[in-house]
Amino acid sequence: MSLAPAIVTLLTDFGTADGYVGEMKGVLSMHAPGAMLVDITHDIVAHDVESGRLALARYWRRFRSGTVHLAVVDPGVGSARRAVAVESDGRFLVGPDNGLLSPALLVAGARVVELAIPPTAAATFHGRDVFAPAAAALATGTRLEELGVPVDDPVVKRTPEAHRRLDGCIEGQVIAVDRFGNAITNLVGRLAGRLEVDGAMLPVHRSYADVDPGSPLALVGSTGLLEIAVRDGSGAERFGLHRGSRVVLHPK
Amino acid sequence: MSLAPAIVTLLTDFGTADGYVGEMKGVLSMHAPGAMLVDITHDIVAHDVESGRLALARYWRRFRSGTVHLAVVDPGVGSARRAVAVESDGRFLVGPDNGLLSPALLVAGARVVELAIPPTAAATFHGRDVFAPAAAALATGTRLEELGVPVDDPVVKRTPEAHRRLDGCIEGQVIAVDRFGNAITNLVGRLAGRLEVDGAMLPVHRSYADVDPGSPLALVGSTGLLEIAVRDGSGAERFGLHRGSRVVLHPK
Amino acid sequence: MSLAPAIVTLLTDFGTADGYVGEMKGVLSMHAPGAMLVDITHDIVAHDVESGRLALARYWRRFRSGTVHLAVVDPGVGSARRAVAVESDGRFLVGPDNGLLSPALLVAGARVVELAIPPTAAATFHGRDVFAPAAAALATGTRLEELGVPVDDPVVKRTPEAHRRLDGCIEGQVIAVDRFGNAITNLVGRLAGRLEVDGAMLPVHRSYADVDPGSPLALVGSTGLLEIAVRDGSGAERFGLHRGSRVVLHPK
Repeated sequence: MSLAPAIVTLLTDFGTADGYVGEMKGVLSMHAPGAMLVDITHDIVAHDVESGRLALARYWRRFRSGTVHLAVVDPGVGSARRAVAVESDGRFLVGPDNGLLSPALLVAGARVVELAIPPTAAATFHGRDVFAPAAAALATGTRLEELGVPVDDPVVKRTPEAHRRLDGCIEGQVIAVDRFGNAITNLVGRLAGRLEVDGAMLPVHRSYADVDPGSPLALVGSTGLLEIAVRDGSGAERFGLHRGSRVVLHPK
Repeated sequence: MSLAPAIVTLLTDFGTADGYVGEMKGVLSMHAPGAMLVDITHDIVAHDVESGRLALARYWRRFRSGTVHLAVVDPGVGSARRAVAVESDGRFLVGPDNGLLSPALLVAGARVVELAIPPTAAATFHGRDVFAPAAAALATGTRLEELGVPVDDPVVKRTPEAHRRLDGCIEGQVIAVDRFGNAITNLVGRLAGRLEVDGAMLPVHRSYADVDPGSPLALVGSTGLLEIAVRDGSGAERFGLHRGSRVVLHPK
Repeated sequence: MSLAPAIVTLLTDFGTADGYVGEMKGVLSMHAPGAMLVDITHDIVAHDVESGRLALARYWRRFRSGTVHLAVVDPGVGSARRAVAVESDGRFLVGPDNGLLSPALLVAGARVVELAIPPTAAATFHGRDVFAPAAAALATGTRLEELGVPVDDPVVKRTPEAHRRLDGCIEGQVIAVDRFGNAITNLVGRLAGRLEVDGAMLPVHRSYADVDPGSPLALVGSTGLLEIAVRDGSGAERFGLHRGSRVVLHPK
């Protein structure tokens, strides 16, 4: 064991005020006393697995090897959906088998096991009674295989793909709107071309600072995808964009 | 002292944006340098001691022995209300003596001391100047008795009790509505019977997944209390429920 | 190195739901494996550097010596604004050179260096690609001077000053409204005198508890500044106060 403590991160759609996250952290403190708990977010929109998946895609691999990512956006809790633990690229993930953990499942060599649901587990709160204990076990050195039987067909969700049209344009869509009103698309960024959005044609810039305050622009965001923004404003609001809104990239 | 660091948890109604919680964490870092700070929530509705009490009831005992729970929902700060520290079932709690810490006070053997208010303490911010230093002291091994004089009559608030009617039904009420719109009652759960809510009769199910999306149900929640829910929706919204709303459990 | 872990605090206007803060924490976990991450807030109003500056003023010096404060409210990201690291009174700070870090810059002996922007850094996310790595370096013992070249003229913003009128009154303004609706002024507190607010004359009290519920009052807040409050209510709402609203302190 290294000197650095094990890390367990938490992503949920629970909010914090009801104390549910507190319960999960208590279980972690009990079963993995030395682990450092790192909040990612508890503000995922309730039951929005897709938002959780996109957030997780951003951070899971940036943490150091050995990190355990606990992620619970789980509208199907208590149903037949499986509870799983994953090992992928040296990190561990624990959560419902509903697509939330897809970013890690898409990496070659990912392994998945199904967690047993103890008869004493509350049917409405696997976060506390199933996922947190499994995360604590992984944080304290339990091997993935000891936690359950292998799963060959985990649920995998993918970001919808953009496609090239006959006229050479690439048609895509908005996949998320962030807190700043930036509308993130599924178009892999390039600095050439113009982005057609709700009838407007936006040049692709390097940064917000390249246009005047209040002006719209497209740019390559921090994950390499094209975004629609307004400097010191909201791109999503300006153009009425939401998840699924259509955008078209015109070649230069 | 074990290898695992001391834990100090924080629950407040301060929000985080103003920096007040940051000040408290700074004081903790200064006086208990090795302690791990664990946020429970800072989103308790301002001055809502009752919500804080119910959240605390969920998590305080799930943390490992020795944990210090710092909890500040304190509309009476600067008044004659006492500041207290509690030792109960191996955990410590620090906060105002206004009922917030009741869940720990109701356990046999709980001990309470009154914290002195230093003359330099801001009359509006005991969280920083009284409670955080006391929590840090407990986290670094100071004994409860060293922090103040014993209190025999701490303020204890209880969840209102349900009562059995002459007709055999049990009449209770909603005690909280959670982020998902689940209305949690004071009726100890059982899977038999039907729950009367705003004129409707709801069967008691095991889990949300037992009914169709959009359908209402009652179920036994994760603390063993009956809840009113709508699958993939809000039970509180559907039936207009809030804290205090009347519900009746009919025997099977 | 002491037994207590290095601390890195985080203040941003990112919210948490998009995963941006998660990315920053991942980078910190990778480059400063032993550091304890302490959230201050991620709820600063988007792009509101002034709110961030005032929050930071509250907490930065309360943390123990050696703490690294990472603070990112950065509407000018990708522009010519500098990225900086600061050493002041034994603490370190990392963030944009836009006034956010002013409270630490105003202390005698503060030193500032400009951080290089690596060509691979995303133009829209220096928090992840510039500031987090610098904070991790400082947390693991890198000296400030190793991070960049000295800066002599960092951007410093100050709280607007109150001024004494010919009639002996002191004219000031509201600089912030907190979550409880307290309107914090730039008037250094004193318990004598009356505060004129929107036509009303408020006596200065010691604490909320000194007036009846629902009554307005002025008081000396926890940083020594006069505040306008309503007991169990909102002073800002009662008097229509916001940042910049004029207030006048009348001598006793």
